[in-house]
Amino acid sequence: MTVHVRAVGTALPGPPLSNARLAAHFGTNEAWVQWADTFIGTRTRHLSVDLDTGTVRTDLAGLAATAGGRALSAANVAPAEVDVMVLATSTPDALVPATVTMAAERLGINDVPAYQLQSGCSGAIQALELARRLLEGGAHRTALVLGGDMCAKHVDLAMDITELPPAETVSTLLFGDGVGAAVLSTADDGEAPELVEAFVRLTGLGRDPAQVVEWFGAAGNRDGSAPITEDYKAIEANVPAMSAEILAELLDRAGWEESDVDYLLPPQLSGRMTERIVEHLGLHGAEEISCVTETANVGNATPFFQLERLLPRIAAGERALGVAVESSKWIKSGFAVARA
Amino acid sequence: MTVHVRAVGTALPGPPLSNARLAAHFGTNEAWVQWADTFIGTRTRHLSVDLDTGTVRTDLAGLAATAGGRALSAANVAPAEVDVMVLATSTPDALVPATVTMAAERLGINDVPAYQLQSGCSGAIQALELARRLLEGGAHRTALVLGGDMCAKHVDLAMDITELPPAETVSTLLFGDGVGAAVLSTADDGEAPELVEAFVRLTGLGRDPAQVVEWFGAAGNRDGSAPITEDYKAIEANVPAMSAEILAELLDRAGWEESDVDYLLPPQLSGRMTERIVEHLGLHGAEEISCVTETANVGNATPFFQLERLLPRIAAGERALGVAVESSKWIKSGFAVARA
Repeated sequence: MTVHVRAVGTALPGPPLSNARLAAHFGTNEAWVQWADTFIGTRTRHLSVDLDTGTVRTDLAGLAATAGGRALSAANVAPAEVDVMVLATSTPDALVPATVTMAAERLGINDVPAYQLQSGCSGAIQALELARRLLEGGAHRTALVLGGDMCAKHVDLAMDITELPPAETVSTLLFGDGVGAAVLSTADDGEAPELVEAFVRLTGLGRDPAQVVEWFGAAGNRDGSAPITEDYKAIEANVPAMSAEILAELLDRAGWEESDVDYLLPPQLSGRMTERIVEHLGLHGAEEISCVTETANVGNATPFFQLERLLPRIAAGERALGVAVESSKWIKSGFAVARA
Repeated sequence: MTVHVRAVGTALPGPPLSNARLAAHFGTNEAWVQWADTFIGTRTRHLSVDLDTGTVRTDLAGLAATAGGRALSAANVAPAEVDVMVLATSTPDALVPATVTMAAERLGINDVPAYQLQSGCSGAIQALELARRLLEGGAHRTALVLGGDMCAKHVDLAMDITELPPAETVSTLLFGDGVGAAVLSTADDGEAPELVEAFVRLTGLGRDPAQVVEWFGAAGNRDGSAPITEDYKAIEANVPAMSAEILAELLDRAGWEESDVDYLLPPQLSGRMTERIVEHLGLHGAEEISCVTETANVGNATPFFQLERLLPRIAAGERALGVAVESSKWIKSGFAVARA
């Protein structure tokens, strides 16, 4: 059973915020802005929390409903035609109910299985892969697949960024909020590209997670854990090589040669990291499709923003590969799209 | 492709805690204990947090590794034979990495897809259903399916229970910590019962969630949300009827008559609620398999504790139905097991 990517939609909260805008809010200087522009390479991001007022503009379910609605409209698919939903996020609105169920409410979708994956940067591909498998099984025809993240609960607007250790300053710059959605379908309109391959695999045995994000309940932060820990050295050391391994595995699974690949959708940690990964992959014949300099790293939404840029470009006979590495517990993930 | 339940394992933290033990900790009286015994009907539960010291004995990944290891041993399956993992929980240890990846680490499982579902009381069935579909697709042979919850982050041991509104007092009594695991396999050892059916469906359009559980990050509780909200009136009003609808749908899907059912695994909200639901279902020929009076409501672990009690009993030719309702956004879920 062939699974098609019928359409993609995305949603971003509020206006783009430049590094200079963050600098103005957090009280850093011009040198910091230049460092952010050059050494991080992420120029703007969107945040659901208003920097001036602290107001949270939207929740994840709201943004998911916007992105999902756009994808459905673009695919010319009614909410009632959706017969399975899969959403991936590391930042659900609440622990219960699942955000996917609240997004369904706003889209008017009901009487379907609605799965929510707890995941980091591999989540969008986990969701696409899982939806693909469920559709291939034949029990469903039309899946609405969503991925997104929102860092409002993690961002303390009153923090003094000049006092932060370098790793935490970097975190402030890297991440943006956003949700992406794709309509996958086994129905063929003769136009939509095919999701040829998708895989996800945990490969972290014996290796420490390079990203840990905690949550707190009514009992508070009982043991004084750091809310977010990132080991950027481990990420920089491992992600390029893992990306190359994923690329090789995707080519092998799809039965393609390097020279067959027309578009590359690489990992989007930061503008600078993405540059380094693309250089390491050395896939010179492929056009790079990235979004990170504008959207920042939008976590579980990232591949949807890349797919949104890919769909209008990919012509008949063309092929694309997408790669994501989740550096938490070292998850490899990738997918292949082709237009017949 | 037939999917078998090869074995089940469970894990509970610490000793059973009676209502009298909770009363001693929280400073309530003998009348409260009698009310808890009679009107709630849940007599004991296990908690990962030590009531005396506040120490948290284990995390969810640790308990999942214990339950998973027990299930694998009982199935005589090596960790290296597991080729896909699915874990369901509403209380992951952290937002990132997924707890399923940390449980894999402790079990020595690697190089597999590892999915984590964010879910409430329907989660175990979501995980069983998803694993069944993935196995039926033929890409995997052996799934380790896990479900569990741990309320340590939600329990403030210093709270004055006598000052709480009645709904919150009830919450303190209802929930226990635990993890369950099942080994599902397409390999037939000629002994294991078959997972004949499993389904999950969101049915909450236009209805408010009856359970909301929040989480907080570095920005804290920005808008002063209640950490946990339960609408017990809505739950009592809706769960028995939804359970009957699930039962009817399961019979229809499996092509069974009521008189074919030898065992009933009903929802396990509380001892008293389970009694009322079983009465409402009126499946007089079926033996009830419940655990709630001893384990309390163990959330995403519940059906595994029931399956653990079912497996040694179910004889050749016998049939069992399991029902769970997630009252968050009103999710129906059920499964059918039969021994050839």
